[in-house]
Amino acid sequence: MRVSKGEGSSEDSMRVLGIDPGSLITGFGVVEEARGGLRALTWGTVRTSPSQPLQVRLKRIYDGLSEALHTWQPEAVVVERVFFAENPKTALILGHARGVALLTVANAALPLVEYSALEIKQAVVGYGRAGKAQIQQMVRALLHLDTLPQPTDAADALAAAICHVHTHGFRSKVVR
Amino acid sequence: MRVSKGEGSSEDSMRVLGIDPGSLITGFGVVEEARGGLRALTWGTVRTSPSQPLQVRLKRIYDGLSEALHTWQPEAVVVERVFFAENPKTALILGHARGVALLTVANAALPLVEYSALEIKQAVVGYGRAGKAQIQQMVRALLHLDTLPQPTDAADALAAAICHVHTHGFRSKVVR
Repeated sequence: MRVSKGEGSSEDSMRVLGIDPGSLITGFGVVEEARGGLRALTWGTVRTSPSQPLQVRLKRIYDGLSEALHTWQPEAVVVERVFFAENPKTALILGHARGVALLTVANAALPLVEYSALEIKQAVVGYGRAGKAQIQQMVRALLHLDTLPQPTDAADALAAAICHVHTHGFRSKVVR
Repeated sequence: MRVSKGEGSSEDSMRVLGIDPGSLITGFGVVEEARGGLRALTWGTVRTSPSQPLQVRLKRIYDGLSEALHTWQPEAVVVERVFFAENPKTALILGHARGVALLTVANAALPLVEYSALEIKQAVVGYGRAGKAQIQQMVRALLHLDTLPQPTDAADALAAAICHVHTHGFRSKVVR
């Protein structure tokens, strides 16, 4: 899994970037685990205007995520697995943004890991039907943040990253 | 509309590249109109394997389309406008491929034009409910090809390009 290693990370640490794609707001967050401790390195969003043509918004998402991947050099990128959406129109637009997010990861030659929303909620909150506010609060607690990570898109991205650290960390302990 | 002009085109010609995106087969075709005559410069597909991870397939679509845009230097790129899909799952996957196709156009700084399937069929066949075989035959006739353009994904891409030449050519004549 440790294909590329950021300059800031060492053999004993693991850096994961989570992405929550959306055509209007794409959240991202970087989590690092070192000596058993978990901390947030950054989180934020790439925002686009609904008044702009879709291809311009997709380019902004691509550029923003590419910059985040280049800056933070994670060892793995996590994007929530999507099985379905409410309706075909929503699914089509979400697909555009998610496709660009996956392409960004492939173009950066980074390993992509996918977890379902259920797996992420289970890993972070311990409850598969947790709401966005609960996720935000648990992300804050797990990362020892002074305030709630905002907006929920960024909190969801941090949650996805935490899920991978928990899952991967657990596997590592079993292997060693 | 004439933002960038390929080396092979002159003031009196117009070169359009059509794209028919799909996660397994993405068709493309280049049409040129010069002195009132219409001809196909190339057509083909970018094919991906369903056994590969989606992000690898999206990178292949991105690389293949980027290469085609670079090689053929069209003045405009046409992608069919999609309003809906049969079901959310199909829409989600189509959205991934279409999003990457639109990004390719934006990254190449080329103008993107969208037409509905109805508009493309009306412009090429003269009948909005035309089937794929009818489109193929009319594309062959309009471009004076010896054989049917294959596969239908490439024929559909050529049809999208023809639609723009017809629409744009008509507008140009009105303006001049």
